[in-house]
Amino acid sequence: MIPQDLLKQIDFIKEIDKIKYIQRQTKLFNRDRRENDAEHSWHLAMMAIVLSEHSDREIDLLKVIKMVLIQDIVEIDAGDTLLYAQNKSHENTAEEKKGAERIFGMLPEKQAEKFMQIWTEFETGNSNEAKFAKSMDRLEPLLQNTSNDGGTWKEFGVKYQTVYAKKKVIKNGSTELWNYAETLIEDSVKKGILEK
Amino acid sequence: MIPQDLLKQIDFIKEIDKIKYIQRQTKLFNRDRRENDAEHSWHLAMMAIVLSEHSDREIDLLKVIKMVLIQDIVEIDAGDTLLYAQNKSHENTAEEKKGAERIFGMLPEKQAEKFMQIWTEFETGNSNEAKFAKSMDRLEPLLQNTSNDGGTWKEFGVKYQTVYAKKKVIKNGSTELWNYAETLIEDSVKKGILEK
Repeated sequence: MIPQDLLKQIDFIKEIDKIKYIQRQTKLFNRDRRENDAEHSWHLAMMAIVLSEHSDREIDLLKVIKMVLIQDIVEIDAGDTLLYAQNKSHENTAEEKKGAERIFGMLPEKQAEKFMQIWTEFETGNSNEAKFAKSMDRLEPLLQNTSNDGGTWKEFGVKYQTVYAKKKVIKNGSTELWNYAETLIEDSVKKGILEK
Repeated sequence: MIPQDLLKQIDFIKEIDKIKYIQRQTKLFNRDRRENDAEHSWHLAMMAIVLSEHSDREIDLLKVIKMVLIQDIVEIDAGDTLLYAQNKSHENTAEEKKGAERIFGMLPEKQAEKFMQIWTEFETGNSNEAKFAKSMDRLEPLLQNTSNDGGTWKEFGVKYQTVYAKKKVIKNGSTELWNYAETLIEDSVKKGILEK
């Protein structure tokens, strides 16, 4: 007999395959196609591993990785919203919470609670881990847009002030990474791929 | 001034974007397209988080996650080889080692060494973490093939004995997951999606 809890876990594992169909606005580094949420989540986890030494505060790296790996699963139900969207909040929408409850709720009860906790902690953004995880989430598309000739900034007419304000979240996790990010943003203006 | 080590890390982060273009043979759960290595690695990490309680032995989950997230990066240089390939060994080829040295070698020296160690430990397969990581790596495509009407088994004419022998690796990491996997394999024969 296969334990019921294992079957629930397997159903969850199959369900989250759908994240591979959620397209982000941001394109891959060589800009030939958009990135999907599974690829994005993998990349954030790799960045967390590689860059963890730059966190301003002590962090539990395992928790950061869990955050970035699961954060976008809710988009299976809620869809991806552009960071610069004006008609819809990028984060913490009721739809996302409902998605989290449905999808994490497929897991055995205690495990579902743990997933909800980690997701909520990330969304709330107050813990050291959440701050560093959010730094990763803002840094990846910055690297992409600067690598692919302005990417979504050009496509959606996003200007310097908005980019600067949104990207400043990186500073909450890491002064060193923010210094680098700031340089990238300023250089983008000089190169003409970001309008001031 | 941006520290040289950080710039090396950023170059590495950009380089590994290429994993998103490495196509595996196995198709997604609803079988409409092949999976790429970034998606596969994300899914294995999620499986490790969800299923870690089923490991037969104590494991350091962070290490398992690092293993499954980085294991396929070498395929940027070496390409993906089908598990059932007959003309080429699936694992541990010289090309993969060369790929690991080049790509991990982009990182600052000490970090590069750590990445090589984790990758080598995974490939060698002796530690508890490597065994569990390999269980994940064999279980995901089994779930995919049983979800999508035989998938690569049908496509490449792979038969029961071969599947059984290759999938038995799951047992080294988890008796419980192997029991489940065995049931899936036997059911696949009954359903006619795997030939005995």
